[in-house]
Amino acid sequence: LQEWWTNVRLFLVNAYEMGRSDPRQFIFAAKSGLALAIVSVLIFFKEPFTYITQYSIWAILTVIVVFEFSIGATLSKGFNRALGTFSAGVLALAIAQVSMWAGEWQEVVIVVSIFVAGSISSYVKMYPSMKPYEYGFRVFMLTFCIVLVSGTSHFVQTAVSRLLLIGVGAGVCLIVNICVYPIWAGEDLHKLVVKNFRGVATSLEGCVNNYLQHFGYERIPSKILVYQALDDPLYSGYRSAVQSTSEEDALLGFAVWEPPHGRYKMLRYPWSNYVKVSGALRHCAFMVMAMHGCILAEIQASAELRNMFKNEIQKVGTEGARILRELGSKVEKLERLSPDVDLLEKVHEAAEELQMMIDQKSYHLVNSEKWAPGRQPKEFEDPDRFQELKEDEIKPNVINSLSEANLNLNPKPPLPYKTQDRNVPNMSAHPSMVHWGSSEDVLKNQTHWPSRLSILGDTILNVREVRTYESASALSLATFTSLLIEFVARLQNLVSAFEELSEAAKFSEPVNPLEVK
Amino acid sequence: LQEWWTNVRLFLVNAYEMGRSDPRQFIFAAKSGLALAIVSVLIFFKEPFTYITQYSIWAILTVIVVFEFSIGATLSKGFNRALGTFSAGVLALAIAQVSMWAGEWQEVVIVVSIFVAGSISSYVKMYPSMKPYEYGFRVFMLTFCIVLVSGTSHFVQTAVSRLLLIGVGAGVCLIVNICVYPIWAGEDLHKLVVKNFRGVATSLEGCVNNYLQHFGYERIPSKILVYQALDDPLYSGYRSAVQSTSEEDALLGFAVWEPPHGRYKMLRYPWSNYVKVSGALRHCAFMVMAMHGCILAEIQASAELRNMFKNEIQKVGTEGARILRELGSKVEKLERLSPDVDLLEKVHEAAEELQMMIDQKSYHLVNSEKWAPGRQPKEFEDPDRFQELKEDEIKPNVINSLSEANLNLNPKPPLPYKTQDRNVPNMSAHPSMVHWGSSEDVLKNQTHWPSRLSILGDTILNVREVRTYESASALSLATFTSLLIEFVARLQNLVSAFEELSEAAKFSEPVNPLEVK
Repeated sequence: LQEWWTNVRLFLVNAYEMGRSDPRQFIFAAKSGLALAIVSVLIFFKEPFTYITQYSIWAILTVIVVFEFSIGATLSKGFNRALGTFSAGVLALAIAQVSMWAGEWQEVVIVVSIFVAGSISSYVKMYPSMKPYEYGFRVFMLTFCIVLVSGTSHFVQTAVSRLLLIGVGAGVCLIVNICVYPIWAGEDLHKLVVKNFRGVATSLEGCVNNYLQHFGYERIPSKILVYQALDDPLYSGYRSAVQSTSEEDALLGFAVWEPPHGRYKMLRYPWSNYVKVSGALRHCAFMVMAMHGCILAEIQASAELRNMFKNEIQKVGTEGARILRELGSKVEKLERLSPDVDLLEKVHEAAEELQMMIDQKSYHLVNSEKWAPGRQPKEFEDPDRFQELKEDEIKPNVINSLSEANLNLNPKPPLPYKTQDRNVPNMSAHPSMVHWGSSEDVLKNQTHWPSRLSILGDTILNVREVRTYESASALSLATFTSLLIEFVARLQNLVSAFEELSEAAKFSEPVNPLEVK
Repeated sequence: LQEWWTNVRLFLVNAYEMGRSDPRQFIFAAKSGLALAIVSVLIFFKEPFTYITQYSIWAILTVIVVFEFSIGATLSKGFNRALGTFSAGVLALAIAQVSMWAGEWQEVVIVVSIFVAGSISSYVKMYPSMKPYEYGFRVFMLTFCIVLVSGTSHFVQTAVSRLLLIGVGAGVCLIVNICVYPIWAGEDLHKLVVKNFRGVATSLEGCVNNYLQHFGYERIPSKILVYQALDDPLYSGYRSAVQSTSEEDALLGFAVWEPPHGRYKMLRYPWSNYVKVSGALRHCAFMVMAMHGCILAEIQASAELRNMFKNEIQKVGTEGARILRELGSKVEKLERLSPDVDLLEKVHEAAEELQMMIDQKSYHLVNSEKWAPGRQPKEFEDPDRFQELKEDEIKPNVINSLSEANLNLNPKPPLPYKTQDRNVPNMSAHPSMVHWGSSEDVLKNQTHWPSRLSILGDTILNVREVRTYESASALSLATFTSLLIEFVARLQNLVSAFEELSEAAKFSEPVNPLEVK
């Protein structure tokens, strides 16, 4: 019982926190309580007319079903309900007329028509383009059955009083929902897109910084391995942008129902363009995801190599994140890009610098000494110390275990070593020692591929294979930079989508073009 | 009108096709029609008791709301409905009692309690862990209001007849749904996971093959750029695997409600492990997505370079796809991995070969001649012809336009050229000429970054920058192979997740271990 009570308290605290972080949820709850109370008052007042009390359920049902969080959702459900009720009412009245001619077969006609109507509407509502009207089909079936079953004598009275009370319910819903602190789905969609921009920017910065600081997961959280939500800013930033498709589609479905309002003063506001911009952002986020994959990977570039390209990579990352934030805030403020500033210029410059740097130093990216033995870089001055250092911390697991296995292996230094660049904080946690494992014991029994080498090491390994992994580790930097550059290339697509949106939605000109950089 | 009629015909044909491709949808439609018809017959029979006719709506409403596609969904909705109705009924009766003591304040007490109950349940149902019970809260509100409003004199009668008729409706739903061709959500989940395995395998093969055949999109479909659905097997394979998270979660939510059935003879069947396997598959699929990104990219490796590594890349791709298919069919057949065969051995071998090949030929991946001018590959025997050929078709757009601009540029051949390897089919469609554009004119105005160079070429370009792009194109191959190797590394994680599933779900031993390879 103690435990139960703790759980209840925890639940209450969390529920309160939920409302505090988004007060609209308190407001929504109060609004829906208000709508229900109003409807019940109306029904009390009308008590003299007994048949209204009998059908009062319709008004209450309508309020409960139609009252949704956003105005768009309420309107679309209300429309569904009205259309479903009306068409079902007409059809049912017609069939009731037919059934009366059928004389003693009346019941059979009614039951058969219920079967047929129920089957057809169940079938059609599964058709993909009918999905948004699913609720309408349910209402259709309900009304159809009720009208036919309610006894042949007062079809018209049933249908009319139903319609009347549904009208009352829907009217109360709309009035309360629109007049009391309206919550618009379009605004939510807008905010979601802005949030995605910020999330991807944070992820990008995090990826680049972690990569440069040689950050490695001690154990990769198993939730990442099976792509579940996790509270890691680096991961959750791009994940939520990638995952928000269904939420965006739902909000889009509601937003198109909403009349012009607030800052969106336009008939047929181009909400779908927001979704398109978000899709283009997602296309960029996939590259961030792949870069994160480089951090998760077992084969990692050495810290020296990363330091060599540090400034260039850092610059591209910072510029890329800046552009995402800039676009995000442009979307937020409904502002166009200023025409006289080329937003992408700086990031393209930075990417070109990185590319040139890679080009100049490309011999670092492959195990050069193998085929150009005379071209050892000059910085490599103290081979003994380097060797020692390498055995202590730079060498990956694999090689350590090989040395222990007395394979008479004297690994050649595959990468140039710069002493002046050793300002990396957590060198001792070398990412090659990352274990793909789970802190929650859900994925046990993980002997992984490159580390398998060390297990089988005694028998099959030879120098050649070890060097293979060394060269792979150097290429891993090339991969990271390629992905980064591809990310930059995809930004163009994002900017195009944004420009199209700003055109279609008639964004305002930037207020102060000089301030915008 | 003509057009309208065409649309209607098209709709009917499509709707019929939908049912033909999955006949369960016909069956579901017929079943729900049947359930409705049975309920309406029951209500006709009981017509002597007038109060039942008055409340017949409850039975019909229950059938319409509770009858869902799969058994799990029906059970979970039925449970929600029962719990909501029952708790609301009890609470409403208690409050009605209190309100009677209140004397003339009775109405006020009732309206206030409706407001409070409506607000609280609207609020709690938005709490994330309460989402599956959202429907239950609606039912709670409905019953609560109905019982309180329906007039103080026959609270008990209202509550009892409601419960009775809801029981009738729910009973009919369950009987029809379970006895007539049952549709299980768990089976759907199972099939969805298998389908994802196949989809990713197809995408992987497609990526590798297209990459090796130097396939380039003439124009990249704009739907890919904004991550919308598109009927391209390469793209839709991994996209549907990545996108299926929400569908999986929904099916999982229903599957846990289902009793043991068919091949899943086990209480508390580990459905969540299927979702976990699918998540691990998704983790692999992200690498396929990144490889697809290499195909979409503008900077592409030359055909020569691809041919050089063709066999190795092909082998890794084929083996990887084979493993995915193998695991998929193991999941489908509910079979364990055979303990004496190491599933991943071959793909690891292939990946190691590829890695070694890369290592040996790494000088092809960087523009080597710059820092090792004496080391021009021997195969390069006819410089004049090569030069000519290069200008005709191998050189990317950028360089062509530069030559035209008379920049006095004499590009050095950055890559070795093997005449004997020229068996690539569509060489003339060089991917560097890919235009990021849309066949649907939705993303116009696309001047893209590397091609921007050719626009600005007259003024700023110099030989150094051109060579930068050449080296970038060589590194693009390194990226592709790195991603492929990372994909292979992630397979281990997938196999672990599968083994965990096969353990938890007590999969059978493989029937013929000799046949399984």
